[in-house]
Amino acid sequence: MMLTVQDIAARLQGVAEGDAAIEIGGLAGLREAEAGELSFLAEARYQNWLAQTRASAVLVARDWSGACPCTVIRVDNREAACVAAAGWWAAPVPPVEPGVHPTAVLGRDVQVGEQASVGPHCVLGDGVRIGAHTVIEANCVLGAGTVVGDHCRLYPLVSVREGTRIGHRTLIHNGAVIGSDGFGYDRDGPRWKKIPQLGVVVIGDDVEIGAHTAIDRARFGKTVIGNGVKIDNLVHVAHNCQLGDHCAVAALVGFAGSTILGDGVQVGGQAGFSGHLRVGAGTVVAGRAGVIKDMDGGQFVSDFPAMPHGKARRMHAHVMRLPELKKKVDAMEARLRAIEGQGASS
Amino acid sequence: MMLTVQDIAARLQGVAEGDAAIEIGGLAGLREAEAGELSFLAEARYQNWLAQTRASAVLVARDWSGACPCTVIRVDNREAACVAAAGWWAAPVPPVEPGVHPTAVLGRDVQVGEQASVGPHCVLGDGVRIGAHTVIEANCVLGAGTVVGDHCRLYPLVSVREGTRIGHRTLIHNGAVIGSDGFGYDRDGPRWKKIPQLGVVVIGDDVEIGAHTAIDRARFGKTVIGNGVKIDNLVHVAHNCQLGDHCAVAALVGFAGSTILGDGVQVGGQAGFSGHLRVGAGTVVAGRAGVIKDMDGGQFVSDFPAMPHGKARRMHAHVMRLPELKKKVDAMEARLRAIEGQGASS
Amino acid sequence: MMLTVQDIAARLQGVAEGDAAIEIGGLAGLREAEAGELSFLAEARYQNWLAQTRASAVLVARDWSGACPCTVIRVDNREAACVAAAGWWAAPVPPVEPGVHPTAVLGRDVQVGEQASVGPHCVLGDGVRIGAHTVIEANCVLGAGTVVGDHCRLYPLVSVREGTRIGHRTLIHNGAVIGSDGFGYDRDGPRWKKIPQLGVVVIGDDVEIGAHTAIDRARFGKTVIGNGVKIDNLVHVAHNCQLGDHCAVAALVGFAGSTILGDGVQVGGQAGFSGHLRVGAGTVVAGRAGVIKDMDGGQFVSDFPAMPHGKARRMHAHVMRLPELKKKVDAMEARLRAIEGQGASS
Repeated sequence: MMLTVQDIAARLQGVAEGDAAIEIGGLAGLREAEAGELSFLAEARYQNWLAQTRASAVLVARDWSGACPCTVIRVDNREAACVAAAGWWAAPVPPVEPGVHPTAVLGRDVQVGEQASVGPHCVLGDGVRIGAHTVIEANCVLGAGTVVGDHCRLYPLVSVREGTRIGHRTLIHNGAVIGSDGFGYDRDGPRWKKIPQLGVVVIGDDVEIGAHTAIDRARFGKTVIGNGVKIDNLVHVAHNCQLGDHCAVAALVGFAGSTILGDGVQVGGQAGFSGHLRVGAGTVVAGRAGVIKDMDGGQFVSDFPAMPHGKARRMHAHVMRLPELKKKVDAMEARLRAIEGQGASS
Repeated sequence: MMLTVQDIAARLQGVAEGDAAIEIGGLAGLREAEAGELSFLAEARYQNWLAQTRASAVLVARDWSGACPCTVIRVDNREAACVAAAGWWAAPVPPVEPGVHPTAVLGRDVQVGEQASVGPHCVLGDGVRIGAHTVIEANCVLGAGTVVGDHCRLYPLVSVREGTRIGHRTLIHNGAVIGSDGFGYDRDGPRWKKIPQLGVVVIGDDVEIGAHTAIDRARFGKTVIGNGVKIDNLVHVAHNCQLGDHCAVAALVGFAGSTILGDGVQVGGQAGFSGHLRVGAGTVVAGRAGVIKDMDGGQFVSDFPAMPHGKARRMHAHVMRLPELKKKVDAMEARLRAIEGQGASS
Repeated sequence: MMLTVQDIAARLQGVAEGDAAIEIGGLAGLREAEAGELSFLAEARYQNWLAQTRASAVLVARDWSGACPCTVIRVDNREAACVAAAGWWAAPVPPVEPGVHPTAVLGRDVQVGEQASVGPHCVLGDGVRIGAHTVIEANCVLGAGTVVGDHCRLYPLVSVREGTRIGHRTLIHNGAVIGSDGFGYDRDGPRWKKIPQLGVVVIGDDVEIGAHTAIDRARFGKTVIGNGVKIDNLVHVAHNCQLGDHCAVAALVGFAGSTILGDGVQVGGQAGFSGHLRVGAGTVVAGRAGVIKDMDGGQFVSDFPAMPHGKARRMHAHVMRLPELKKKVDAMEARLRAIEGQGASS
């Protein structure tokens, strides 16, 4: 869809400055935009990206003052304007047809709620219960006794092992695995003897789980993902972990067994947790941090082993000044030797 | 299923101390348990968790002495008691029906062993051989010429590329990929030219492979996973790697091409191996370690680049004491300056 | 297939030295080869592996001089000889049958190009377009409006969300996910409010994407994978990233949102990028590096936070010499104290 700058300004109740006849066919960030696209100045600190943008027009705050090489559109609320503009050029969301696709294979006593949809080639084990308005997309596999609440969406190729319980309004992205066996073995000489993984996974309401994230069932009892938790792609959640409500976990994070996060913990990408430990509510764990012991709540921790971020920064600064320290020590030693020489000669 | 503490004590031939009428509906760890659940004191070092547990009853050793806020059940063998108790509340394992599901698509000359099961929507290429009592769950795809031994289980959505050979009693969890192309290219000016990946993957007996683990086929020859190897979720095994018998590899580990592990090597989560290197038998590689050269057997190595763990600990301690060292050097310099001043004035 | 050393020498127009009657049944690296296999001396620096190889014959350069415990075959071009030999023992590549498998489920207005193949249990949404000679293997799911060019191959269980555009001659390995929602939320008190992910993914020509790699759709606009890009297994590419032409990315790398790589950037395994940053063309990012700010092109960077590799090496050397520095400072202090003592006594 092509819109002129003038059209856009009118739709957003904004004011165009510059060439208002230019045709715009998309929305992108300042550094990604190409000619014929609209961009936006999200925060003042990105101001210096304006000079190099290839965008044909940029959304700015009503009272913004600064130089811009292209047309600007002044709006009251850049955030709302962006969301509106994004919608004009969004990929069309495919419609969902309620009902069970004839190629799906259902076990005994499966219940599918009102207006729910089960896609082609899905396989639902005995006793599976799917809530109202929930969408199970193509080629998903749900084990016996799985319960999925209302208004959930499982994207294609998700697999859920037997006995898993999922709340309402939860989204699970392509390929995620819920309820796979935990990784537990006893030694038997040089061999490993499997410890049966007899528990389940319980996932709350309003949760979002990323593509290819794997959440293992508990050894016994349950692995718990609290309400409102958001997990990015390719995350590993081992058996018996408990993620408190509203935690947010970025991609490629690994939680070893029995890691317990309090409510509202945030975890940056590629961080790791060594298991059998507890992180207090509200703590922020930086990307790539390695947590190997209990952490109090309300902190910002980083580095490996994880420590308060201020301390980690100081340690890093000390390391980066090591060449200087070395030089200083060498110089001092020369001075010391000179003094010793004087002493000897005196 | 609800059981009274008295029932539980009777089943475990144990002795209840405290309220034996409480009803119990599950088993969980001391820190995870809720009211109405049974827990256990696995090791003496977790004793201080007892005071805060919400469990309604706790399994302890027959001769244990200590304070507990709730009912205790004394048993001879806590480990065995736990395993028994876990079974009472385990998710029911769905039964497997032998035979090939009518929706599965089989190529030419496919052999399916006695009592084996091929689930809905599976696709088996020409010449695939499935051993006796092996279960291939829903929506798996096995390439031409794949051989799977007896008593294996492939969970849903596993894919295996052509020519892969899998031993007996091996478990492969949801979504694992076996035999994908290795990552190999030659330079061709600015372009990358694909090096054909002509080999296969060979997996031993009694192996377990985690959800979403990807094991690449060899450039030529074979990528080898030895007998009894256990691999957790989201692990990357590149082309031509060889994992010796009874290795254990935690989640999110990456092995670059031609990494060779001796027998019984253990690897912690998120560790990495830079390829074309060899780790001797029995070595333990700590979580997040980065191995970039050959390592002798029988060691415990950590850090990046990986080194003997004792050395890594000492280095880390030195770094953590850098502020102190810096302060000491500054103080020494002041003293030195004072001496030099005296010398000048004398 | 078994070949004698003599047969092999004849096929490769080489000269055998040693027992030419030995039967050979495969090709493998010097350290992986077993008796009855052929190996090769790829580079002079691997010469010392020759002494321990179990291979029965080794390909060497025509003019190579050195000791080898087994038969050697001298050839003009070891690389070409290896590729040829690898082909003799390669797993047979299964033939592809053009056309749409009867079990595939196609939406409205799907176009499948000449000689293209859509495998069993695939699901193609409305308006999907598949180019000529492209192969979509079993159990793939392609969302509405997806466009795949000519001569592509999607291996089994790949899923592609709506609106994705894929160029020509691109390979996507098993289980990869293209176009999943980006990970974006606004704060709403303790809760996270989902930011709609309205953009798409655009993938160029001659791209290769590894098993279980996940590439998220843009918040708006597009996530871009340039022409000739090669991505290994289990890589996370967040929303709005742009990978320039001919980048190469090893396994388990994570790109946070809006990371922009110039052309020809190379990234080692398990590296991470904190997002909203730009790496200049041709820069090499070492394995496990953590990039947290813009990087100029044409560099080799490593460590976390990433810095020029030479500097990172010097810093690491300084850290490894800390015990020595500490000892030196302690000794200097003793000497200082001695001088001060003399001063006091004088």
